[in-house]
Amino acid sequence: MTATLIERLSAIVGAENVLTDAVAMAPYLVDWRGRYHGAARCIVRPDNAEEVAAIVRVCLAAGVPIAPQGGNTSHCGASVPDTSGTAVIVSLSRMNRIREVDAANNTMTVEAGCVLQTIQAAARAAGRLFPLSLAAEGSCQIGGNLSTNAGGVQVLRYGNARELALGLEVVLPSGEIWHGLRGLRKDNTGYDLKQLFIGAEGTLGIITAAVIKLFPLPGTVATAWLSIDSPAAAVRLLGELQARFGAALTACELISDISLGLVLKHIPGAQPPLAASPDDPHALRTPWHLLIELSGTGEEADLRAACEEFLGAALEKGWIDDAVLAQSGEQAARLWDLRERLSEAQKIEGFSIKHDVSVPVSRIGEFVERAGAALQAAYPGIRIVAFGHVGDGNLHYNQSKPEAAENAEFMAAQPDVNRIVHDIVDALGGSISAEHGIGQLKRGELAHYKSAVEMEMMRAIKRTFDPLGLMNPGKVL
Amino acid sequence: MTATLIERLSAIVGAENVLTDAVAMAPYLVDWRGRYHGAARCIVRPDNAEEVAAIVRVCLAAGVPIAPQGGNTSHCGASVPDTSGTAVIVSLSRMNRIREVDAANNTMTVEAGCVLQTIQAAARAAGRLFPLSLAAEGSCQIGGNLSTNAGGVQVLRYGNARELALGLEVVLPSGEIWHGLRGLRKDNTGYDLKQLFIGAEGTLGIITAAVIKLFPLPGTVATAWLSIDSPAAAVRLLGELQARFGAALTACELISDISLGLVLKHIPGAQPPLAASPDDPHALRTPWHLLIELSGTGEEADLRAACEEFLGAALEKGWIDDAVLAQSGEQAARLWDLRERLSEAQKIEGFSIKHDVSVPVSRIGEFVERAGAALQAAYPGIRIVAFGHVGDGNLHYNQSKPEAAENAEFMAAQPDVNRIVHDIVDALGGSISAEHGIGQLKRGELAHYKSAVEMEMMRAIKRTFDPLGLMNPGKVL
Repeated sequence: MTATLIERLSAIVGAENVLTDAVAMAPYLVDWRGRYHGAARCIVRPDNAEEVAAIVRVCLAAGVPIAPQGGNTSHCGASVPDTSGTAVIVSLSRMNRIREVDAANNTMTVEAGCVLQTIQAAARAAGRLFPLSLAAEGSCQIGGNLSTNAGGVQVLRYGNARELALGLEVVLPSGEIWHGLRGLRKDNTGYDLKQLFIGAEGTLGIITAAVIKLFPLPGTVATAWLSIDSPAAAVRLLGELQARFGAALTACELISDISLGLVLKHIPGAQPPLAASPDDPHALRTPWHLLIELSGTGEEADLRAACEEFLGAALEKGWIDDAVLAQSGEQAARLWDLRERLSEAQKIEGFSIKHDVSVPVSRIGEFVERAGAALQAAYPGIRIVAFGHVGDGNLHYNQSKPEAAENAEFMAAQPDVNRIVHDIVDALGGSISAEHGIGQLKRGELAHYKSAVEMEMMRAIKRTFDPLGLMNPGKVL
Repeated sequence: MTATLIERLSAIVGAENVLTDAVAMAPYLVDWRGRYHGAARCIVRPDNAEEVAAIVRVCLAAGVPIAPQGGNTSHCGASVPDTSGTAVIVSLSRMNRIREVDAANNTMTVEAGCVLQTIQAAARAAGRLFPLSLAAEGSCQIGGNLSTNAGGVQVLRYGNARELALGLEVVLPSGEIWHGLRGLRKDNTGYDLKQLFIGAEGTLGIITAAVIKLFPLPGTVATAWLSIDSPAAAVRLLGELQARFGAALTACELISDISLGLVLKHIPGAQPPLAASPDDPHALRTPWHLLIELSGTGEEADLRAACEEFLGAALEKGWIDDAVLAQSGEQAARLWDLRERLSEAQKIEGFSIKHDVSVPVSRIGEFVERAGAALQAAYPGIRIVAFGHVGDGNLHYNQSKPEAAENAEFMAAQPDVNRIVHDIVDALGGSISAEHGIGQLKRGELAHYKSAVEMEMMRAIKRTFDPLGLMNPGKVL
């Protein structure tokens, strides 16, 4: 049976694009954090939507589960199949063509396997911005970005991946192709079907191409690092920044001093943002930091002057303790590097229990206080690494023991730590997965916190599109 | 049976909120254009979601169709039931409370029956902008705006109604309530169910409340009227304006000179935008016009100076033939009035065959040329009234005979005129309903242009949510 399946799949994509060798398959079977190890019959690497559709029809006829895979950078095990070995992994990597750039329409038509960074570069080459930006951009693929509704650092201004998609081409669990590659800003002809596939993590079909939105390329940028006392101060500053700069505020990242400390400890060459040297005693004097980016299309000198004026007034009013406005692109890049290497520094430091939560922006201060107090009460001395996108109410909120040796034991506490954090998130009207999705990791938590009505609507949609449950089983639901 | 139903409904909402009298019911039974006259058993006016749910359960048990109704301003007959008289109209008008304004979160929680203008005013009172803006704002309700994914003049900057909603409360066709009133910018916990109800025109459930996004209130505005030669010139200017002003370009409206002529003819006091007086021979010298609005949070003098500089350069380069920058809020309001009263002026002029289409912005010039040529060939001398939101690729594109007397005959040509226009829209990858939805008016056209795969996906969703087909039957599908 399996042999026949492999032969049929080879007939569709060519034998060279059906991987069955253990060594060749290995990188597709483990997630990037190394937490999920799956198994599969083979990896199939189609070249176009028709081939994807033919693969799905063959699997459907054989009752074989399908695991679609992009850049395999999921934080939640969404891109790796279970350990049964029954699934076929459909890798979209070969579908990496940019089909069209329409600068006058501010759109680009891309295949699912295009790497995010490649898309950003192609947009720039056309004098446009594709604003989706996140740490994995060098390897994640747009199909995965859309399937997980990826977020990142510019959501504040440009929205999540969902808001950046105008049209989709999708292979349905039936093996039919939905040709929905429309590049329209307004289209009210019936149900907006693309919304179903965005964020569905491949459980309702396989996104094979998309029409994505482009924006004018901001030629003017001002980047600043602000030292502040608390998350509540960050929320206040966010409001003042939005009132003054509106859409020109394109990023607003909150970083706890503990988080910054890990970067300074583990990343070679990392320097405190406000210090002349690493030994400067004033380097890390506030418990929280805010990294802001203003960008736009006017004169850079005007934007920088307005930013300086704002920071001066903020200092005077006591909203901030200190600030630095980057004096060069290089300095701005160094400030951003401190933010972007947080995950890497944490990984070097060792194990931590991670949360990717959101609450209404107005409740961020309350969340940090309540969750911190509850965790310290339950686990005295626990270390909390918190950073994130304050303008989106989204915090990455991770816990570990200060001593690496204690973490093996602490790992077992994960369900209890999750419950403490997620109960507070839930009480504040928040989300237990702001931008990383559900995958395998948070299925239990999803079922715990969603209402029966909401779970049943999701299951009903799943049954309608995929009655046999063959499309990325074991994910989300 | 009907008597019993009325009694049961009265027990839920009180007898005074079940209208059965013909005179009281009349305004609910005809659409605002006067084209659709429906019939109903009664009008029920619930006060809250629990009452709506109880009404739905009573109707479900009795097998009675439900027609949800907001401000009854649909252009497509979406808000009026069919003529069978079997339906119960559920009017959301009494559910008009603003439940919460969270300025720090930039959100507002509103009930479905809130009039759009009331919401705009409440946002302004909190120092915020709710950017949804359209001609019917004085009477349309937010529940209807969301159910039809309303567009309007600020979509270019802020998106359609869909992009302005963060959470929903919905009464499902089963009579259950989905409590999805989340005010989160990021929430990737499973399928994004609210997307299904937005734009579904009440066929999948009744939206009873929503959490909507607010924005910083732009204190700085510059409004200008530009005289141009063609839609292609408008698209070019749009690109230049976006490159120069980015998100500060908040509106960009294209108006044909024929359209403007109707306003000047029928609206008392309307004056040509570029003329010193109505008799000024230069008043209407170009075939097309562009009304632009720049707005932001900086200094008004800076924005006006930048706009003047842009217009000067545009004149010099021959991109525009003439321009006026409004010198006062009053003058800006007069320019906007010329745009906003186009529909009214058309109505006074008499019958016209209307289209609400979109194409990729890059194809607008081609659309206007091809459709104009095809229509003139089929109907020599036909008058085309075209105006719309060029930044969204959205044109209102209406046809009539120059002589009112000929229009009775021309009315019969509607299917043929639709076919000519919509075939060209379809060939250009456009939409036959950009912002008005489908309702009763465009059901046939929807089925004509959508693929079998897409129609079947929509029907499958409808069957899943509303297996008995009782929720706003005869609309969309």
